[in-house]
Amino acid sequence: MANMTADQLRKLTKTIFEAAGTSSDVAEQVARSLVENNLMGHDSHGVIRVPDYARRVKSGEIKSSAKPEIVKETAVTAVVNGNWNFGQIVARDAMQVAIDKAKQSGIGAVGILHCNHIGRLGEYSAMAAEQGLIGLVVVNAIPAAAPFGGKARVLGTNPISFAVPAGKQPMLLVDFATTVVAEGKLRVARDKHEKVPSHYILDKDGNPSEDPNDFYNGGMLQFFGAHKGYALGVLVEALAGALAGAYTYEGNDRGNGVFMLAINPAGFDSAEGFRERIDALFSRIKAVPPAPGFKQVLIPGEPEMNNKKTRLAEGIYVPADTWEALKKVAAEFGVDADKVVA
Amino acid sequence: MANMTADQLRKLTKTIFEAAGTSSDVAEQVARSLVENNLMGHDSHGVIRVPDYARRVKSGEIKSSAKPEIVKETAVTAVVNGNWNFGQIVARDAMQVAIDKAKQSGIGAVGILHCNHIGRLGEYSAMAAEQGLIGLVVVNAIPAAAPFGGKARVLGTNPISFAVPAGKQPMLLVDFATTVVAEGKLRVARDKHEKVPSHYILDKDGNPSEDPNDFYNGGMLQFFGAHKGYALGVLVEALAGALAGAYTYEGNDRGNGVFMLAINPAGFDSAEGFRERIDALFSRIKAVPPAPGFKQVLIPGEPEMNNKKTRLAEGIYVPADTWEALKKVAAEFGVDADKVVA
Repeated sequence: MANMTADQLRKLTKTIFEAAGTSSDVAEQVARSLVENNLMGHDSHGVIRVPDYARRVKSGEIKSSAKPEIVKETAVTAVVNGNWNFGQIVARDAMQVAIDKAKQSGIGAVGILHCNHIGRLGEYSAMAAEQGLIGLVVVNAIPAAAPFGGKARVLGTNPISFAVPAGKQPMLLVDFATTVVAEGKLRVARDKHEKVPSHYILDKDGNPSEDPNDFYNGGMLQFFGAHKGYALGVLVEALAGALAGAYTYEGNDRGNGVFMLAINPAGFDSAEGFRERIDALFSRIKAVPPAPGFKQVLIPGEPEMNNKKTRLAEGIYVPADTWEALKKVAAEFGVDADKVVA
Repeated sequence: MANMTADQLRKLTKTIFEAAGTSSDVAEQVARSLVENNLMGHDSHGVIRVPDYARRVKSGEIKSSAKPEIVKETAVTAVVNGNWNFGQIVARDAMQVAIDKAKQSGIGAVGILHCNHIGRLGEYSAMAAEQGLIGLVVVNAIPAAAPFGGKARVLGTNPISFAVPAGKQPMLLVDFATTVVAEGKLRVARDKHEKVPSHYILDKDGNPSEDPNDFYNGGMLQFFGAHKGYALGVLVEALAGALAGAYTYEGNDRGNGVFMLAINPAGFDSAEGFRERIDALFSRIKAVPPAPGFKQVLIPGEPEMNNKKTRLAEGIYVPADTWEALKKVAAEFGVDADKVVA
C-alpha cells in the first residue's frame, strides 16, 4: 500500500462515520482529529481507531447527535456533561469553554463527565496555546497501574498534556502517560516476542518483569519515576475523576474523566512579556550543545511538528492490516473504501 | 546532643532572627516554618537554614520589614511583589491570596517576584488543602540541570508541590524536584565518598556519571523520567518564571520565581462529593497489597505525617555540626543559644 494523503484519510474516515449514522459536521471534525494524530506521528490514536469508533456509533455507545451541555458554571469553572458523544467533539467543546473563560476572566477550568475516549490530549492543550493561553489537560482511565509499593491495578495510565505558547517560536506541546508506557507498547513487544525494560511492568506477584505477557496475566503497569509518577497519577485521578464526579471505575469502563485548565498570561505580567520570555527561554534551551548520542536539544513538541511536516509532504504510511480493517468496516456500512480514496 | 523539642528550636530560631533585626511576628512565623520542616523530616529545609537566613537579614538581602504587595490583580489572578522579605512570609501571604480568590471565585492563581528562598513548597500547597482546596506550587531556581539530550545547565531543580484535601483521611501532600535529586544529595554522597546512580547527573561532557564530584566540575543534574521530567521542568519555568516575569537567571541568583494555584472543588460537582470520592480513592489505594520489599502502600505525604508524629513525641535530632552553627550565629547576634533552650 502506498502512502496516503491526509485528505484521502480524512475523506474516508468522514464517509465511514456518516454511513454509520453520524452527521456531516461531527464526522468531519472527528476525521480531522484522528488524521491530525497520524500526521503528528501518533498512529495509535489515528485512523486505526475508525473501525472501533464506527461500530460504537452503530451500537449507540457513541451518541453522535447528542449535544454536550454545561451542567454547572461559574465565571471560571464549568462541568460539562458530554452525553456520550464522540470524546473528541465533547473535549473540543469543553476546551473552548475553558479558553473563553480564560480570555474573559484570566483562568478557565472545566471538568467533563459522560465522555467517550478523547484520543490525543495534546489536541486540546494545543487549542489553548494556539489562542495564546497555557493549556493543561489530564484524563483518568481504566485501572492498569499499581501504586508505588503495591501489587494491584488501582489507577489508569492517567496521562498529562500541557502546551505553552511562544512568540516567534513554535509552542511547547507535551503529552505523556504517568505510567512508564501505555499498554500499546506492551502489545507490540508481546507480538514481536521481545522483552521490555524491567521498570515498565510488574508481574501478578508485584515483581518487576521483562516479559510483556506478565502484564496480561494479572500484572500491572509501573508509574514513571517511581513515587513521583505515582503521585502525579493520583493527582490526575483527583482532578479528572473526583472534581466533576466522573470516576471511570464506578460503573463506567469505556470513557475518560477529564479536567482541562486554560491560563491567560495577560492576567499576570503581560501577554507580550510572557511570549518574549518564553521565546528567550526556548532559545537558551535550543542553544545547549547536544550530549553524546543526541543530534540537538529539542523543545517538547518539536518531534511531532517535524513528523507533521514530513507526513504532509510524503503522505501517511497505512500498514496493510490497518487498511484491511478500514476496508472491512467501510464495507459493513456499505462504503467502498477504494472508491472513496481513488 | 540530646533531641530537642520543636518548642525549643522555635524559641531559639525566633530569638536569633529578632536579634538580627527581625520583628517579633515575622521571626515567629519563619521559625514555625523552619521547625515544621524538621518535624516533617525535611531537615535540609529546617533550622540548618537559620545561620544563612540570619546573616542575610543583617546584610539586607532579606528585608524583614518589607511588606509584600499585590502589583496586579483580577478576581482570580494576582502578581505579588515580595519586596525581598523572607520567602516564607511572602509565599504564605501569596498563597492566602490565591486561597481567598479560590474561595470567592472558584480558582486563584498568584505569581510572585522579588522573592527570597521559600523553603519547603509543601508548606504552601498544604495551606490550600487545609482549607478544603486543591493546592499547587511550583518554583524555578538557579540553572543546574541539562535539558534532555543536552550538556549544559539551563534549568533549575524546578520543584513541584501539590496537595489534595480528603474528607476523613489525611490530605495527599506531594513535593518533589523535577530533577532526579536536588544538589543536597550529591553533596552528602561526595562527603561520604560514595557513588551515585548513573541517572542522577551528567559530567561536563554530557555523559552519565556515578561520581558526584563530576557535578561540581561543570556537570549537570538530570531530570527524572528523561523527557517527561524535562518537560515538567520547562513547564515550571514557564509558570514560575515567565508568567510573573520573575526569571532567576536574569540578574537574580538568590531567590525563587513562584507560581501558586488554588482550586475550589465547590466550583465543580460539590465540595462534599469531592471529599467523599477522594476518601474512597485513598481507601482503594491503601487496600492494595504491598509488593515484595514494601510493608504497605502509602498515600503521598504519609511518610512526612508519620515523621511529624514521631518527632513531636520523641523530639528532633540536631546533629552536632548544626548545633555548633546555631550557637555560632546566635553568638554573632549576642544570643546565648544554650540559655535560650535551657
